[in-house]
Amino acid sequence: MTAIHIPAREGRAFRIRAGQEFRVIDPEGEQVADLFCFVDGDVSEYLSAEHTRVALGRLWPRIGESFVTNRRRLPVLTWIADDSPGVHDMLCAACSQERYALLGHVGHHASCEENLRLAMAALGHSQIDVPQPVNIFEANPIEADGTLGIEPAPTMPGDSVTLRAEMDVIVAVTACPQDITPLCGGTPTAIDVELSG
Amino acid sequence: MTAIHIPAREGRAFRIRAGQEFRVIDPEGEQVADLFCFVDGDVSEYLSAEHTRVALGRLWPRIGESFVTNRRRLPVLTWIADDSPGVHDMLCAACSQERYALLGHVGHHASCEENLRLAMAALGHSQIDVPQPVNIFEANPIEADGTLGIEPAPTMPGDSVTLRAEMDVIVAVTACPQDITPLCGGTPTAIDVELSG
Repeated sequence: MTAIHIPAREGRAFRIRAGQEFRVIDPEGEQVADLFCFVDGDVSEYLSAEHTRVALGRLWPRIGESFVTNRRRLPVLTWIADDSPGVHDMLCAACSQERYALLGHVGHHASCEENLRLAMAALGHSQIDVPQPVNIFEANPIEADGTLGIEPAPTMPGDSVTLRAEMDVIVAVTACPQDITPLCGGTPTAIDVELSG
Repeated sequence: MTAIHIPAREGRAFRIRAGQEFRVIDPEGEQVADLFCFVDGDVSEYLSAEHTRVALGRLWPRIGESFVTNRRRLPVLTWIADDSPGVHDMLCAACSQERYALLGHVGHHASCEENLRLAMAALGHSQIDVPQPVNIFEANPIEADGTLGIEPAPTMPGDSVTLRAEMDVIVAVTACPQDITPLCGGTPTAIDVELSG
């Protein structure tokens, strides 16, 4: 088992072989983890939220169901276990420098988009698309009138989800640095990843 | 006024200057129009569904609200008028060759993704990202359990929507060729676009 500690406001990318499982853990609670997944060897193919919604006919996979790539290859990752309140999001873009500027922040602010770019560049991939992320533990309730809420992640310390890679992939996980909206309970904290095998 | 006729199963792309309005019309009813919008001069910046949802805090803009780019520039297109049942989608990927293969079709099938690529290549842009489209008139009702339905477009002949470009943009519209699911009432038909000025 390999343990990867992702400090608050940072991101990491790591290779996972087909068949390996990994667990994304919120060690302190109320923390969102943005997850991205690229096909190892051709990062222009990646886990796509919009193709997954069409493939499954659902906003989010159920246990045992899988995410799909932008070329509709199924499965790329399978949603194996959910030991959390089960609240996640695949509708909202990764936070970015521009998001924090629009929220009134002056100067540089860490963001999931920057974390993704840095983590992928560290593996040699400086040119990537920025896909819609899989926002683990993120609470954006959809109201009947189409409004999207922003609520603190409902996780308790130690809550986790488990996925299995079905292809050789590069997974990037970022500990969301959002400290202006209530998304991460106001104080961004770390994320841990445990990789089997 | 410039009239652009998009035959059934085909797509067209056209330049629109900041301030120009355009109307997307379903001349025969029950037809979905996939719309994409790129910034003229830098097509790596484009209308982004996921950034629009965050900017508006909604699944879909209300009249007078605007779509946002993947760099969060607001506004790129404004939703000016809706003379249709008001049912649209921004959750489902454009149909593609792989989608039809998964639905059991053998051989080539026209698709919104191919239509987009052909229409953009005709304007000299052979390398583009394929964004989540703005699926005008598309009915994918969200159920309480997260299920996404597929229903025929509820449009009557002549129904339309009107948008205004807020930057110089390239807009691509495709008359969705979906003839396997009920999305276009079983028989894909044409889409008309009227461009002011």
